[in-house]
Amino acid sequence: MSKQVPVGVSARHIHLTQEHVEVLFGKGAALTEFKPLSQPGQFAANETVAVHGPKGSFAKVRILGPARKATQLEVSRTDAFALGLMPPVRESGSIEGTPGIRIVGPVGEVTVDQGVIVAARHIHFHTSDAERWGIQDKQLLKVRVGGERGLVFEQVLARVSDQFALDMHIDTDEGNAAGVKTGDVAEIVES
Amino acid sequence: MSKQVPVGVSARHIHLTQEHVEVLFGKGAALTEFKPLSQPGQFAANETVAVHGPKGSFAKVRILGPARKATQLEVSRTDAFALGLMPPVRESGSIEGTPGIRIVGPVGEVTVDQGVIVAARHIHFHTSDAERWGIQDKQLLKVRVGGERGLVFEQVLARVSDQFALDMHIDTDEGNAAGVKTGDVAEIVES
Repeated sequence: MSKQVPVGVSARHIHLTQEHVEVLFGKGAALTEFKPLSQPGQFAANETVAVHGPKGSFAKVRILGPARKATQLEVSRTDAFALGLMPPVRESGSIEGTPGIRIVGPVGEVTVDQGVIVAARHIHFHTSDAERWGIQDKQLLKVRVGGERGLVFEQVLARVSDQFALDMHIDTDEGNAAGVKTGDVAEIVES
Repeated sequence: MSKQVPVGVSARHIHLTQEHVEVLFGKGAALTEFKPLSQPGQFAANETVAVHGPKGSFAKVRILGPARKATQLEVSRTDAFALGLMPPVRESGSIEGTPGIRIVGPVGEVTVDQGVIVAARHIHFHTSDAERWGIQDKQLLKVRVGGERGLVFEQVLARVSDQFALDMHIDTDEGNAAGVKTGDVAEIVES
């Protein structure tokens, strides 16, 4: 049985706490939905911020909502070089010891002392997908992409929840290296 | 027998004809060596140029020498998006039908109507390496990189010559996706 998974290529983006949303966009402000993402309840917001690293900046970084417990900027390694940072490859939410960043919104700004990561490649599985394919939460998988830049990603982290929809998340460096774009399909070749 | 190959991660760079060197740097100008590259006789030049695409520019693109038969700009897919171009993945020298680019030097400028490529990942083999490992020119190989972003590159083009030194060339998107840098080692896992 072929284990096919849709691919989503994540551009640089940021998650904010509600406190930081209000610092950046004004007291009582809330994120507003631009479009839904593949994971239920998650959305790309209309709002963007600027981020400033020691070497470079990005003027418009999309915020993904809803607000979270911790502010977290996810960039590709290419982006990190442009900012002048060397963030580790981390699972989302694991930000201890990561570099900080200055974030500027239309109303205010905030500098966090940690929160910049290169996201570890991962697949969201609904519990039913994981059961059907015999995949455990936190398992590391091998996933193949075909085509002229075909490759097999190793170290692909499985994340299983009944809140998730089946989707593989890689960053722009990984998407470009593999010659894939959002909506293409990859195949789990070893689990 | 383990088939280990050193990795070289190529940043964006340009090759110029002698005619274009003189347009950009002045009549009678020649490229001067900044440092030698892994392939015998090839060098990074002291000279750089600016390149301007329909959407964006890069101010300082390193020229690799010596001068060639055709001018060719090699960029990552990330770079190509920044320039506003959609170049194909091509072997070096295969530029028919590729996008053009405006190139600006300190003395003059030139616009070529083709020559922008995303370089196909490849390994240079000295003839003796290829014979020892049973690898043919133009063969497509699978090459593994370990570590936290480990992956297996497929579609790795073998190029065999007694003028070559053993080295695998990937671009910055591929290096970042695999978590490797110049001087790291990859292993041919299927040939």
